[in-house]
Amino acid sequence: LIDGALSGDRLSLARVLSQVENDTSQGRDILEQLYACTGKAHRIGITGSPGTGKSSLVNRIALAYRTCAPEKRKRVAVVAVDPSSPFTGGAVLGDRVRMRELSGDTGVFIRSMASRGALGGLAKATMGVVQVFDAAGYDIILIETVGAGQAEIDIVRLADTTLVVEAPGMGDDIQSIKAGILEIADVLVVNKADRPGADHAQRILQTMLDLVKPAEPPAPAHEDFIDEESLPQKPSTAGWIPPVLLTDASNGDGIDELVDAIEQHAAYLHASGEWQRREASRVQNELQSLVQAALVERWQAGVPEGIYQRVFDDLTARRISPARAVEMLLER
Amino acid sequence: LIDGALSGDRLSLARVLSQVENDTSQGRDILEQLYACTGKAHRIGITGSPGTGKSSLVNRIALAYRTCAPEKRKRVAVVAVDPSSPFTGGAVLGDRVRMRELSGDTGVFIRSMASRGALGGLAKATMGVVQVFDAAGYDIILIETVGAGQAEIDIVRLADTTLVVEAPGMGDDIQSIKAGILEIADVLVVNKADRPGADHAQRILQTMLDLVKPAEPPAPAHEDFIDEESLPQKPSTAGWIPPVLLTDASNGDGIDELVDAIEQHAAYLHASGEWQRREASRVQNELQSLVQAALVERWQAGVPEGIYQRVFDDLTARRISPARAVEMLLER
Repeated sequence: LIDGALSGDRLSLARVLSQVENDTSQGRDILEQLYACTGKAHRIGITGSPGTGKSSLVNRIALAYRTCAPEKRKRVAVVAVDPSSPFTGGAVLGDRVRMRELSGDTGVFIRSMASRGALGGLAKATMGVVQVFDAAGYDIILIETVGAGQAEIDIVRLADTTLVVEAPGMGDDIQSIKAGILEIADVLVVNKADRPGADHAQRILQTMLDLVKPAEPPAPAHEDFIDEESLPQKPSTAGWIPPVLLTDASNGDGIDELVDAIEQHAAYLHASGEWQRREASRVQNELQSLVQAALVERWQAGVPEGIYQRVFDDLTARRISPARAVEMLLER
Repeated sequence: LIDGALSGDRLSLARVLSQVENDTSQGRDILEQLYACTGKAHRIGITGSPGTGKSSLVNRIALAYRTCAPEKRKRVAVVAVDPSSPFTGGAVLGDRVRMRELSGDTGVFIRSMASRGALGGLAKATMGVVQVFDAAGYDIILIETVGAGQAEIDIVRLADTTLVVEAPGMGDDIQSIKAGILEIADVLVVNKADRPGADHAQRILQTMLDLVKPAEPPAPAHEDFIDEESLPQKPSTAGWIPPVLLTDASNGDGIDELVDAIEQHAAYLHASGEWQRREASRVQNELQSLVQAALVERWQAGVPEGIYQRVFDDLTARRISPARAVEMLLER
């Protein structure tokens, strides 16, 4: 199955993806085996509110990577993640729209992630799916998410380059820009640029961008327990100024410039050492999560039935304090 | 200092709050000692985008609780949390506006949380501050946050009742409603109801609310390692239908109705058993976080210098897989 997936058999690949997405024991084995083959793809996150035309834009970007000169042509995977509301419903429709233009191209693979309630699980499942595509030799992995909640930010952390998509007329003032969204953007896109207000939206975003001080990369999800200095030297991130680009995904205007900007960002990441630093930070986060989970699992296995419950009851009744509760649980 | 804070000395209280907010060892001791006195306050979270008039609304709610009949009058604490962007700047100005109307009232205490970069820390600091107010006998604790990112959702989890504030003209369509925001709202407020479009915004919110299936409460932040059935029986949450109310914080229109709705929600929480269930779920989350942190800390103390680094390097170079890395780190 794995050999098939790695050698380009689409059915095998689809099966491997399902195992990994569903986090089966076979899926976990597969990820273990594939791990050594990962680390080559350029992962591009695309996020933005519903209605900004994200899906069409992703479609266009995929096409652009497929229709350039043969020596530059790249294999493209699309991972459409939609953990959000009953209002978007974009995933199913999106796939159909895409298929019309990309169907029959064996250099493209599109995968919609099922929304499954547990958002934490979605980020993990997405990471697995991305690793499979990476190992299977897809050069470009487009990860499409909705909005900018924590689930999306977790998913965006998987990406090397993050696009934030806005559209004109979604509120002309800064109130419509979600807090924190500018901080995660490597490239800002005003899509639907044929609509009135596009230039205005571009100017507003540009102004806001100028106001934001050079942002630190997102804090790691877990407390560091590795010496900071042992990480690859952190380069200045001030070297990259996120451009604000106008696109019209309906007719393709501005897509070439957008792909150029994405490629420039990748070049910047490599040249500055930021690529390596982000990779190290991701590996560290994953290792820490896994160690933490393993520690909790081992400890749980050793706690006798009833002890946890008694401590929990005492704590709920405020007969003991939280710190005392932890002492009682760990002193054994 | 603690005695002073609990007996109503405002200077002592301010000092205690600073210790707790800054997570000093004295602050942690104080929280330990106060823990037995907590659990009585009604914690009300107020969240919404910048520009919705949240701060003025919080102001009005505080006033309403102070200007009712003496036997109903309650002590009110306001915790203003603003972890977001350089664009809001609401905290400082907000305090001034508030002070004019609430100054001199010793039954009100306002605390602005400093934004300190680390959002995770902010939720923890806010929890500590809320516990201090609770122990110090504040009946109503208003927790004001901006937006609906994960930090805000973590903070909202501290609240018994959550208000989501919108304003007309911030985008008339559903695109302006953040994904997930309806799921956390116990009461929806369209503030600035004097502006055109208020009725429309109310109808839209009402329609969206009708579309959302009765939402499960937010998933706990950690994997449960307690038997679900040992928790207090989970009541149906279908019994509470979030109202959508119009207010005008500039002149006080609709505030009495809003406070009524808040009180009705508190009554519902108590009558349905939901209050107790949420409390148990909060205690459980806190205990699990603390146990996890303690386990990691102990394990770290036992890992020799260099081992972690070597495993980390092997993992980064993909010479070993993540699961193998964990094995190597824990086998000792």
